[in-house]
Amino acid sequence: MKKMANVFIATCVSGLSDAVRKILPSTSITSINRINKDAGPGITHEEVAAIEKHADILLADVPVIQAVAHSAQKLKWAASTWAGVEGLVKFIKDTKTPSFTVTRMGGAFNTLMCEYVLANILARERHVLELAKQQEAATWDKVPYMKYRSLSELTVCILGLGEIGTAVASLCGKLGMKVIGVTRNPVADDRKCPEVTQYSLVTDLSEVLAVSDYVVSILPSTPQSRGLLSADMFSHCKNKKTVFINIGRGDVVDEESIVKAINNGWLGGAVLDVFDQEPLPPTSRLWSLPGVIVTPHLAGPSTANQCAVSFCENYQRFVKGEELKFVIDFQRGY
Amino acid sequence: MKKMANVFIATCVSGLSDAVRKILPSTSITSINRINKDAGPGITHEEVAAIEKHADILLADVPVIQAVAHSAQKLKWAASTWAGVEGLVKFIKDTKTPSFTVTRMGGAFNTLMCEYVLANILARERHVLELAKQQEAATWDKVPYMKYRSLSELTVCILGLGEIGTAVASLCGKLGMKVIGVTRNPVADDRKCPEVTQYSLVTDLSEVLAVSDYVVSILPSTPQSRGLLSADMFSHCKNKKTVFINIGRGDVVDEESIVKAINNGWLGGAVLDVFDQEPLPPTSRLWSLPGVIVTPHLAGPSTANQCAVSFCENYQRFVKGEELKFVIDFQRGY
Repeated sequence: MKKMANVFIATCVSGLSDAVRKILPSTSITSINRINKDAGPGITHEEVAAIEKHADILLADVPVIQAVAHSAQKLKWAASTWAGVEGLVKFIKDTKTPSFTVTRMGGAFNTLMCEYVLANILARERHVLELAKQQEAATWDKVPYMKYRSLSELTVCILGLGEIGTAVASLCGKLGMKVIGVTRNPVADDRKCPEVTQYSLVTDLSEVLAVSDYVVSILPSTPQSRGLLSADMFSHCKNKKTVFINIGRGDVVDEESIVKAINNGWLGGAVLDVFDQEPLPPTSRLWSLPGVIVTPHLAGPSTANQCAVSFCENYQRFVKGEELKFVIDFQRGY
Repeated sequence: MKKMANVFIATCVSGLSDAVRKILPSTSITSINRINKDAGPGITHEEVAAIEKHADILLADVPVIQAVAHSAQKLKWAASTWAGVEGLVKFIKDTKTPSFTVTRMGGAFNTLMCEYVLANILARERHVLELAKQQEAATWDKVPYMKYRSLSELTVCILGLGEIGTAVASLCGKLGMKVIGVTRNPVADDRKCPEVTQYSLVTDLSEVLAVSDYVVSILPSTPQSRGLLSADMFSHCKNKKTVFINIGRGDVVDEESIVKAINNGWLGGAVLDVFDQEPLPPTSRLWSLPGVIVTPHLAGPSTANQCAVSFCENYQRFVKGEELKFVIDFQRGY
């Protein structure tokens, strides 16, 4: 008889263990509540030791995976609850590749991230914040707000056509926007998304920015992406007064370059959910920069149900001996 | 040789004449700039007289059509630039039916009205206003705002499945929402919209409200619709804390009933673009009611290009002798 795999779940995503148990009722699951999020794995030494000794499969936040990366004795597969895994990648590169497979969370964030982008594009085009200010003054004046651009009049550039980027591109396209997808390498015809109007290479980024009303970055943090939009790259946005939306990683552009682009009128605005330093320090100039929306890294929260569904789909592949989805390539960096 | 029809355009929608001329370059068009919007037709006596004497077709704001309703000598068709024509309907009922056909503006507003609804649903679900307040305080706190409902978790009830209502229903359905369409009479199977999950009759409104996260009214002002949501109708929303969105006409509910529904916690909020009295008086309690968004009747502005396209499509039907779209039925009231 094939022995059942021991699954350990160690996360601060509340309700995740229960949600997994509901989908996999007959699986052996040990649940560890991760509480201390400030430094280290955030679980007790005994809990770390139990994972090292008994876990075949680990579903956990990145710091827990990092804690057992070189000491787990039976671990075959560690599934991260996080989509952004650059910290783990750096740790692995600085030490050595673990003996087990590591996957990042995929699929769980698509819809909520898409809706964050759409919410912010529509809120801006329909003057939601300005109208709320006017309402506070009990003022009825439609004249300044009567001119709207419909979504079908907008061009959006998507930087990074991974799973989330493709979902954002697809939604924008379905709502009538012209979508330019920017990738590092040419995309094969059979992998192209029907809602992407035009594929461009990152080497042509300046030309793409010059025709885009919005540019959405969903790039992971890699040596290629870091600083890609820094220096004067946003100067190419000056004709369209492009709005920059960042739901990828903060280090795709440094703060100074955003401040300069807004102050020079290159960018018409920005919607920033991710930052080089998080939490964004109270002293950052981004908080009060005109036309800039700052949100505290919540475009795509890990919700228990969605993480559970995504993990359990991969779990079914694991028990059937099939190839896992979202396996981290430590060379590529995500 | 068939004589060409004289088209008169009298409107304050700027750019409309030019937009029509672009689509119909060889048509005889006389353009009158309507300026005085306070009372009367808002154009000079001489301009009124010219329309009365020479116009075969008139594209105009409602007050101009009203001014020539019983005095135009050659007019075959008057096309209103407005979608809401209850003022004209009342005038005609109080006097007599004109000798010419009158159409209301159709088609031009769909997309912008759909996007208004979507902008406000997403802004609410994604806490756009609360996050902006937090940003003003340079505060990074994701905890209160981490729980989101995805659109696919929401049920929206659409009151009024005319052209605009169907477009809103269709968009909501495509984005994954469950859509309940409410109509006065049963809808024949071959006229049903695939994105409407469930059709209900207005007589079952209370049961529908009890399961709806949002209720969107796109009802015109008619004896049947006036006061439909007044009194304690919103009490049926108390379990879902439904949010009421009104982009139809303000008299579907009186202000007192909205205030009561918010204060009693029946409604979770409201997004109001139309009011019984417009402009909404500065003394109205709606301006500062918790969870209520007030916008100055701009969900579906008449834009020159969209009005021109809609008019010119009907114009082609007119010259071919085909039946016009959006003909006002003065008995039905819209």
